[in-house]
Amino acid sequence: MKYPGLVNKTYKSTINYKNRGMNLEALINEACKYYLDEDIAVIYKKPTPIGIVDVDYSQALIKKAYFKEPSTLDYNGIYHKKYIEFDAKECHGKTSFPLNNIHDHQIKHIRRILKHGGIVFLIISMNGGYYLFKGEDLIEFIDNETRKSIPFKVIDNKGYKLNYNYNIGIDYIVGVNEAYKELI
Amino acid sequence: MKYPGLVNKTYKSTINYKNRGMNLEALINEACKYYLDEDIAVIYKKPTPIGIVDVDYSQALIKKAYFKEPSTLDYNGIYHKKYIEFDAKECHGKTSFPLNNIHDHQIKHIRRILKHGGIVFLIISMNGGYYLFKGEDLIEFIDNETRKSIPFKVIDNKGYKLNYNYNIGIDYIVGVNEAYKELI
Repeated sequence: MKYPGLVNKTYKSTINYKNRGMNLEALINEACKYYLDEDIAVIYKKPTPIGIVDVDYSQALIKKAYFKEPSTLDYNGIYHKKYIEFDAKECHGKTSFPLNNIHDHQIKHIRRILKHGGIVFLIISMNGGYYLFKGEDLIEFIDNETRKSIPFKVIDNKGYKLNYNYNIGIDYIVGVNEAYKELI
Repeated sequence: MKYPGLVNKTYKSTINYKNRGMNLEALINEACKYYLDEDIAVIYKKPTPIGIVDVDYSQALIKKAYFKEPSTLDYNGIYHKKYIEFDAKECHGKTSFPLNNIHDHQIKHIRRILKHGGIVFLIISMNGGYYLFKGEDLIEFIDNETRKSIPFKVIDNKGYKLNYNYNIGIDYIVGVNEAYKELI
């Protein structure tokens, strides 16, 4: 009974291989560059926050630093005059997306962006697909469910499926147009 | 004839000392925190972009890295549903603000943000005052003048004077309300 599932899994990993073996972030960075070059949106990945311990000023070289926890999401910018912010999350589990993938202050930040009228979402890579999952749906789940992970069927139902395009990467702006059609 | 000027200069540096000796960035960071706490705006300083050369993964410690040139401006976020982005520039010259303080790709970026309908400006600290200088005025100067620096009188005329407040830092949102009153 499990054999067809295994075949399916192998097939899916072949699809991923076609995406030139790039991880989720690289496929999103590619799209950001495309949107910038084509003047569609101005969205950048923020630099990784670090704490600098030791610098050699004569060479402007950082000799000791550590990674800090981000307070915001990784990507932000402007699209159709709107503030837009999102994070990329790779989920290796098949049945649910663990909420501990998102830091508490990131959730607080998502609430703030929603309150101030911004567009905010996650791009979740799961079960071989890419999903735009709206900040509104994330907060609704957190506020109304006791579960510490979002079942895949919720992501599949409420999320907006994103397509990979060989020339663009993950073409997430198409998903934004669909998910926020009342705003765009 | 120069004596009164010197007295004036000493007086101004006394004012700066009253600002708890903080530099421009610290006074803006303080305001960002205040706006966040008071739910006025959600604006963060982006982490400094670095290129990582060597990491000790066992300790998650960066052992060698270098500073990279930023492509965007240092601060961005959302205010009154609007995308907002700016940079802080300390100018030590008294007569003009050298344009080489702004990297070429930052100028390109400012043009893009303007085109996409965002609010974008510089906060310039000069001659003991703080000025919000709009991206529109910066681009107009660059496109129409051959000079490589903006005379102080242009900044003083076109810029919006920002006030330092002991509890807030540099209260730049008041300047945004004034400079962009048609948008806010």
